[in-house]
Amino acid sequence: MSIKVGIVGISGFGGGEALRICAAHPSFELIYAAGESSAGQKLADRFPALPAKLSNLVIEKWDPAALPADLDVLFASLPTGDSKEALARVPARVKIVDIGGDHRYVEGWTYGLADVWPDQIVGKTRIANPGCYPAATLTALAPLLAAGLIEPHGIIIDAKTGVSGAGRGGGDSKFGYAEVNEDLMAYGLLKHTHMPEMTATISRISGTRAEGLVFTPHLVPMTRGILSTIYCRGKATTEQCLDAAKKFYAGRPFVRVTTAPPHTKWATGSNLAFVSYAADPARNLVMALGAVDNLGTGAAGQAVQNANLITGQAETAGLEGMSSWP
Amino acid sequence: MSIKVGIVGISGFGGGEALRICAAHPSFELIYAAGESSAGQKLADRFPALPAKLSNLVIEKWDPAALPADLDVLFASLPTGDSKEALARVPARVKIVDIGGDHRYVEGWTYGLADVWPDQIVGKTRIANPGCYPAATLTALAPLLAAGLIEPHGIIIDAKTGVSGAGRGGGDSKFGYAEVNEDLMAYGLLKHTHMPEMTATISRISGTRAEGLVFTPHLVPMTRGILSTIYCRGKATTEQCLDAAKKFYAGRPFVRVTTAPPHTKWATGSNLAFVSYAADPARNLVMALGAVDNLGTGAAGQAVQNANLITGQAETAGLEGMSSWP
Amino acid sequence: MSIKVGIVGISGFGGGEALRICAAHPSFELIYAAGESSAGQKLADRFPALPAKLSNLVIEKWDPAALPADLDVLFASLPTGDSKEALARVPARVKIVDIGGDHRYVEGWTYGLADVWPDQIVGKTRIANPGCYPAATLTALAPLLAAGLIEPHGIIIDAKTGVSGAGRGGGDSKFGYAEVNEDLMAYGLLKHTHMPEMTATISRISGTRAEGLVFTPHLVPMTRGILSTIYCRGKATTEQCLDAAKKFYAGRPFVRVTTAPPHTKWATGSNLAFVSYAADPARNLVMALGAVDNLGTGAAGQAVQNANLITGQAETAGLEGMSSWP
Amino acid sequence: MSIKVGIVGISGFGGGEALRICAAHPSFELIYAAGESSAGQKLADRFPALPAKLSNLVIEKWDPAALPADLDVLFASLPTGDSKEALARVPARVKIVDIGGDHRYVEGWTYGLADVWPDQIVGKTRIANPGCYPAATLTALAPLLAAGLIEPHGIIIDAKTGVSGAGRGGGDSKFGYAEVNEDLMAYGLLKHTHMPEMTATISRISGTRAEGLVFTPHLVPMTRGILSTIYCRGKATTEQCLDAAKKFYAGRPFVRVTTAPPHTKWATGSNLAFVSYAADPARNLVMALGAVDNLGTGAAGQAVQNANLITGQAETAGLEGMSSWP
Repeated sequence: MSIKVGIVGISGFGGGEALRICAAHPSFELIYAAGESSAGQKLADRFPALPAKLSNLVIEKWDPAALPADLDVLFASLPTGDSKEALARVPARVKIVDIGGDHRYVEGWTYGLADVWPDQIVGKTRIANPGCYPAATLTALAPLLAAGLIEPHGIIIDAKTGVSGAGRGGGDSKFGYAEVNEDLMAYGLLKHTHMPEMTATISRISGTRAEGLVFTPHLVPMTRGILSTIYCRGKATTEQCLDAAKKFYAGRPFVRVTTAPPHTKWATGSNLAFVSYAADPARNLVMALGAVDNLGTGAAGQAVQNANLITGQAETAGLEGMSSWP
Repeated sequence: MSIKVGIVGISGFGGGEALRICAAHPSFELIYAAGESSAGQKLADRFPALPAKLSNLVIEKWDPAALPADLDVLFASLPTGDSKEALARVPARVKIVDIGGDHRYVEGWTYGLADVWPDQIVGKTRIANPGCYPAATLTALAPLLAAGLIEPHGIIIDAKTGVSGAGRGGGDSKFGYAEVNEDLMAYGLLKHTHMPEMTATISRISGTRAEGLVFTPHLVPMTRGILSTIYCRGKATTEQCLDAAKKFYAGRPFVRVTTAPPHTKWATGSNLAFVSYAADPARNLVMALGAVDNLGTGAAGQAVQNANLITGQAETAGLEGMSSWP
Repeated sequence: MSIKVGIVGISGFGGGEALRICAAHPSFELIYAAGESSAGQKLADRFPALPAKLSNLVIEKWDPAALPADLDVLFASLPTGDSKEALARVPARVKIVDIGGDHRYVEGWTYGLADVWPDQIVGKTRIANPGCYPAATLTALAPLLAAGLIEPHGIIIDAKTGVSGAGRGGGDSKFGYAEVNEDLMAYGLLKHTHMPEMTATISRISGTRAEGLVFTPHLVPMTRGILSTIYCRGKATTEQCLDAAKKFYAGRPFVRVTTAPPHTKWATGSNLAFVSYAADPARNLVMALGAVDNLGTGAAGQAVQNANLITGQAETAGLEGMSSWP
Repeated sequence: MSIKVGIVGISGFGGGEALRICAAHPSFELIYAAGESSAGQKLADRFPALPAKLSNLVIEKWDPAALPADLDVLFASLPTGDSKEALARVPARVKIVDIGGDHRYVEGWTYGLADVWPDQIVGKTRIANPGCYPAATLTALAPLLAAGLIEPHGIIIDAKTGVSGAGRGGGDSKFGYAEVNEDLMAYGLLKHTHMPEMTATISRISGTRAEGLVFTPHLVPMTRGILSTIYCRGKATTEQCLDAAKKFYAGRPFVRVTTAPPHTKWATGSNLAFVSYAADPARNLVMALGAVDNLGTGAAGQAVQNANLITGQAETAGLEGMSSWP
């Protein structure tokens, strides 16, 4: 029997990728799509590649009080700040995966770091999907923290994202093609909004209140992809790190441990995450690398993985595709 | 029961896309992969996103005399000129879809323009897959030619391809990133190799020996996508052209007729083809536009569609995914 | 003695390129910069690479009645429709080069096709700079029309522009990086605003009222560059076309006639224009190709060339730089 | 009187940019260009935008024993390893700026970190131009090291380069457009060739043998630009760092100290270097950022600056142009 799903924030990048995955999902049936600016439009007019089976859907005006009676799961992909009040009004019978940032480490919501703690997600009904930078970063760090191979303090995260990770914006020309193309920059030095979520998770896995995290996001001229290059203190060898990761992710379907530094493109269009490590015990240095698609593991891919977990589907349902090459 | 398939030319772009599609195909089982430079390598080392079920495959040295005994279909994606002799040595029991250019309009081979004449493909065992430029062009022209809305003579095709359409090359720096990025050029003026294939097909559909075809390919700084902008002589109106295309492709799963000029990205990563038209009877002018993914309808997507047709699968099996956005 | 120049529309792409060229011009002194949204800002805050000598300039609120008393030349780079009334109020003593589209083929203004008719520009005080598409197209066509090698009727112009040619926009997300990257499309079929300007110029050079012009613009994922691929009727050979162009542009500093199809990047960052030809008399076909930087010959470069001509400077002053490679 | 200059390695990216700058230099006259694969070709055939005054130059076969008798300065831009022996055979009367990597911190050669120690370059005849990563990195670090605001030990350099920084290669498809586009990766973890040069310079400026340097290069899908994001130990505030840099670079023409994190594009096509800082004394953390054009300050721009210094020209001669925007 199919799971009835809906997406709000359908015209954003996260919503669009959720649509693409749900449209091909073997047990999900998309019955509801909502947005703000796009309300009233036929879904097929916005997505020219929409499959015929969804061609009758119309984008609804977003109203948590007017959801279909048989809706099982709602994916919410709204700008930060826009969803707190509205999602509180969604009936309890509807499970929610919030791809946006408003419910991470909020009471009553489970932080859905699906590759790391799937068991804590099963059975829940309110999931806060990790941010894109945390997804890339924490997937790489988790095995080291769990094995005690690095200190949880003073971790330096130098992260780089493609432009779709910055959101579609409301027409802000700072993300215009001619502005972003052939350019690279750091931003939000020493104060990015994703810091609390990462500090909380690092603390949780390590069992110690993590201090002194440094996080520097960069905007890279590409559409998709996040690479997190992480510098930690620790005496482990490269082999110990790789082994710890292989053990930690043994049997997990989406995380791949590689000896070579991962390319972001290895993940593009998929829900795969690639992690790798390089260490120099003499320098008390452990480097961790995590590469994901910011719209895959970093948003809609992991959201569907979470939805699979809370609806009792196979964790990999709808998420088995390879990444795109070239 | 699964169809056993193999791919030769696995490390080229066409072979890689065939792999991606076959790996997710509901009834195809990939049992053989072969190449030249990559022979001996594990397939998983070349494709880090390879699904676990294929992780034991090793890339074989290409040898038509040493194919697996139970192979049903071979996808050949070899450089032009390399496959004629070799494919002649493939046992008759193995069906072949040749993605390369050596067997188009060659006796004993069926030109696999799958969206246009699926019925002529069913039951065949030797399929020559259309070239990427012809795929975009002929899909747009076919309805007009079939309905007699344009003259088959003097058609001007101004086509633009992403870089993967030019092949992976043997390390030719003219396709290097720094060379191609932020550049645009026409090439092969008045003498491109795809001309005979297009002339033959236009003649076949129109029932007249087509004359005076003009074809200008351009290289565009993007990885995937082909757009063909076509100028024809004809007295039809825009509406007549759109109607003819809707009728011609009624019930066909992959071709979409749009009123707005199609974006190549609408097709990226899928087997969809978008066609549109604009006409000015006063000027005796009909414009046709065709947009496809050069590795989708332009190569591996259509190849799988052809394989579906010759093995009795649903035509859309493995090809139902939406394109990627953004 | 230096020529005092000013730029209005300083925060657009055309204005920015005019600034870059004027800042390095041997005889121009920039004394005035104006804008709308950026008024009040220091010019150096908007342009981090501004030379020290200009660091005291502040962006003024655009007001044609409040220009500096000693201003010699004003470059206007305003959105189409915004400049007609305002520029009428500029004092007669100030020469104007209008990079925008409001004064092309308007009485009292000279159409500044500088590479083609420099003599008609010398001595004038109101210059309408050609549009970017016309610049690429007409530079290629002029020699053929002047020599009578092609018919002026039924010319088909298939043109492709980088994104900066579409203007900076007011934050329209349709030019967002993630939307435009890896995409290609045609637009404005059979009705682009540059048509009248091209028809008028073709008629003027050929001495015949040109009919049936077809113009199809395309948006290409690159920042700069325009290529115009043009299909004409004519019995000339390739050599005759190349010879005609070499003769037509003999001694002209910026137009280069090449036997190979030109790359747009050959022109990027310069005021150079590249033209080439290929013909097939048997098919009554002449192809012309024109490649320019849409912000160079297509906007600010040609504007400075025009300003040189009307102020008695060397035509090449400030415009001698090579294009950028890679 | 003009300085006669030559370039060997003319068909590489560094050589090409040296050509572009020298061609517009007010006192340099290019009289010699040499290469390997391109020898015998007319320079104008390789560089379609070459100014007419250089159109008679032919690319010579590189032979240090056959240099023009009146050559004053030779720019060498050869692959690492190729220049040591050959440059030793250049007559002493010819000054050399080696853009390649073979003479950095080699006896008899001066390391030409021109923005930092111009006085040590004046009067020399053998200059080893800094590598592109060191140029971006050391320009940002120098003021902090000189003022003792950071420890010279344990500095972490997370650097990102555009593809032209990786060189043109001999047709290696790993830098092919379709491979690099939409991809991002780290490489050479814990062992890049630029490490010794950076360690030596940091030691020299700080007066202490620097230990524990960590350097991670990344390849970014853009043609030009390097950003170095640097993490240091130190108790300074952001303001102290900015002030130290402003003082250090007071009167220096090419380095700009900015409060906002610099964009690489601010430097593209120019010899400008942008540095910025952010610090958190509570965490013992100082961040430094350096952005340059890898072919400007990172190669040919700084090479010309060095040539100006050793030939008694104004340091800024030929290098005053603004960067390109957009």
